[in-house]
Amino acid sequence: MVPHLTTALTGPLLDLEKTFLAGATTIEQWLRGQWQDHTPPFYCSVDLRNAGFKLAPVDTNLFPGGFNNLNPAFQPLCVQAAMAAIEKICPDAKNLLLIPENHTRNQFYLQNVARLATILRQAGLNVRIGSLLPEINAPTALDLPDGQSLVLEPLTRLGPQGRRLGLADFNPCAILLNNDLSAGLPEILRDLNEQFLIPPPHAGWATRRKSNHFAAYDQVAEEFAKMLGIDSWLINPEFDVCDQVDFHARQGEECLAATVDAVLARIRVKYKEYGVTETPFVIVKADAGTYGMGIMTVRDASEVVGLNRKQRNKMAVVKEGLQVSDVIVQEGVYTFETVDEGVAEPVVYMMDRYVVGGFYRVHTERGRDENLNAPGMQFKPLSFDTYCSLPDPTSSPDAPPNRFFAYGVVGRLALVAAALEIEKTAPQQAA
Amino acid sequence: MVPHLTTALTGPLLDLEKTFLAGATTIEQWLRGQWQDHTPPFYCSVDLRNAGFKLAPVDTNLFPGGFNNLNPAFQPLCVQAAMAAIEKICPDAKNLLLIPENHTRNQFYLQNVARLATILRQAGLNVRIGSLLPEINAPTALDLPDGQSLVLEPLTRLGPQGRRLGLADFNPCAILLNNDLSAGLPEILRDLNEQFLIPPPHAGWATRRKSNHFAAYDQVAEEFAKMLGIDSWLINPEFDVCDQVDFHARQGEECLAATVDAVLARIRVKYKEYGVTETPFVIVKADAGTYGMGIMTVRDASEVVGLNRKQRNKMAVVKEGLQVSDVIVQEGVYTFETVDEGVAEPVVYMMDRYVVGGFYRVHTERGRDENLNAPGMQFKPLSFDTYCSLPDPTSSPDAPPNRFFAYGVVGRLALVAAALEIEKTAPQQAA
Repeated sequence: MVPHLTTALTGPLLDLEKTFLAGATTIEQWLRGQWQDHTPPFYCSVDLRNAGFKLAPVDTNLFPGGFNNLNPAFQPLCVQAAMAAIEKICPDAKNLLLIPENHTRNQFYLQNVARLATILRQAGLNVRIGSLLPEINAPTALDLPDGQSLVLEPLTRLGPQGRRLGLADFNPCAILLNNDLSAGLPEILRDLNEQFLIPPPHAGWATRRKSNHFAAYDQVAEEFAKMLGIDSWLINPEFDVCDQVDFHARQGEECLAATVDAVLARIRVKYKEYGVTETPFVIVKADAGTYGMGIMTVRDASEVVGLNRKQRNKMAVVKEGLQVSDVIVQEGVYTFETVDEGVAEPVVYMMDRYVVGGFYRVHTERGRDENLNAPGMQFKPLSFDTYCSLPDPTSSPDAPPNRFFAYGVVGRLALVAAALEIEKTAPQQAA
Repeated sequence: MVPHLTTALTGPLLDLEKTFLAGATTIEQWLRGQWQDHTPPFYCSVDLRNAGFKLAPVDTNLFPGGFNNLNPAFQPLCVQAAMAAIEKICPDAKNLLLIPENHTRNQFYLQNVARLATILRQAGLNVRIGSLLPEINAPTALDLPDGQSLVLEPLTRLGPQGRRLGLADFNPCAILLNNDLSAGLPEILRDLNEQFLIPPPHAGWATRRKSNHFAAYDQVAEEFAKMLGIDSWLINPEFDVCDQVDFHARQGEECLAATVDAVLARIRVKYKEYGVTETPFVIVKADAGTYGMGIMTVRDASEVVGLNRKQRNKMAVVKEGLQVSDVIVQEGVYTFETVDEGVAEPVVYMMDRYVVGGFYRVHTERGRDENLNAPGMQFKPLSFDTYCSLPDPTSSPDAPPNRFFAYGVVGRLALVAAALEIEKTAPQQAA
């Protein structure tokens, strides 16, 4: 099933899809060129919003969960892409240690870990799972709903002076983080100079900034749009940043209000240019951190002034109690795709430089201008049943293979931006 | 549908599949190591024979036709693998010229060319098709049964001193041969030092020798078998060569008879060791050339002595009138897979280092000890409906995912051998 695109204004999007379709070869060549200069992240998922008149990434996850939501028919693509990723990063790798989030009661998340481990095993690695949880002090089997079980094992330092990380009887060549390090780099993961840590620790949410990603995306979208001869706004959400915000102390409200105003004004200009009659809105969210905490949908600058205690508390802290001080104000992109009256947001999954599938977050209780990845949020995942790599020039621009191809293109632009971001934000190596 | 394995003696095969399954991770690591040292061919297909007690390659095609016989569900795998192949060989490639065989009336072959062109286009290349046929002196559209059409265009030399090959308005970076060069390297393909010719011309049948491939395979199978602790005979057909055979002049019959005798004796020893009660046989075929011409099934050395005129004529010439002088005597491997009473032979397809699918040649009028790729032969292709990359340790060793995994492993061993063969037989570059 493919969600229905319910916007009245599909003109520019169909134009965009047409341009992508006509330029498919050029786009692939351009992406090939990018991967000659930049190393793609090992894996990545990108939340897209399809407004009919605009198709843009709104969040790029470098520690993707949700592999369990991918269509099982795409598993061979994942395995093949994982093989390419391993070959690129650590061709000699034999043992891989996977470090997941500490959500031992979230069955969906555990299924994600199980699926990821299976993909990596089928790609030819011995995979074991090390937990950062202090209470895991012996191998612990967790039962999964599908009858499988997942064994979490305690991490330990190995070798002379404990220079390496592993399990009691498992010395990995590479360590794959499926834990976004919101709480910072744990002591046990520090100074691992002999092993590959994937992604690198500076990609974790304790140091990562959304604004760095979207600054890199600006550059990528600009170059890509120029190459295709399109307006980069059609694929790129406006944004700006306020630092030194302290919601508890009511500091930085003026900056926030001014920024919201400025971003809304930029959107209004564009809506006018394209004849979009919807009300512009922005998403105000913490520049660091994830899981949809600390997020507001704002239609007017006045809404961020004089927040009540509850609102301020909600905005001040994200996952792992990380205090919010930098705030990003991002253009809100309407989602006009619906399934059975539910709002649907596409999420594209990539491994190495390949799109390996995706799914829709379908939510019946949220509006088309709201964040669909919020705490306590119940979404129904709807696996893509169409590949993102098989555009069909003989079908209409919005036919499923072509719509999914467009998702794959924009997803990969965010992937290029992630590669740039990781390069640019890398700490200087000591000589 | 998966063919039924009808041999009484499945013991050693199940042992082999069990070993592959248990060693899946080690096998992938070993293959990864091979690809660090050797560049895989762009594409390749391998004919396998599954005797129940033995699973071995009998022919490796470096110019594979039959992409149209692959399961369309595997298309994304082909596209992804083609992307990897292009990235490896010519990342800057934009325009690719595909040169097919001269079979303009073979609808099956034309569909293969169309499918291949689609894969390469979806991988991000401008693909056009250049014909070696002298009668193609203007772009010529050929209609395909599925309603598509294929445009063949005349080849031409381009640039100063005609240093490059292309079409009138098409200057390709790379030239992909789907023509096996049985007739030698045509004048128009010579001295193309500025463009990638894939595969390299010395892989064409005018110079290629099956015995070089199987000598390389000996080495690969030996190393692989040692690593897994198995008898390499279980995956490797015995062979030997007679040169200076002239069937017309009845020269070399003694050498041939002696070689047949020797190879049969080696098979007998192995059959005894494994308790195989079938009658050993060998395949006598031209060491160069393809299309199943010049092939005999032989159970006793006396059969190759005193051949009648018809037999000699059949053996003396292969495709494109190539004269046979070198003959390979290869252990015959029974095929014990059947579909609806038809004998089934698996063919595994690879692009870059990835298995991208395969099909069975199903033939109802041939015996399980005969060559299934003979002229005039009518086979029904049966696409693999199972991937070769998803072994399932929780199922039985002969469950479809595991049987296909085994095919993928042995197919890739032949792929490694092809890489070695192409390296070893490369002409010395002038300094």
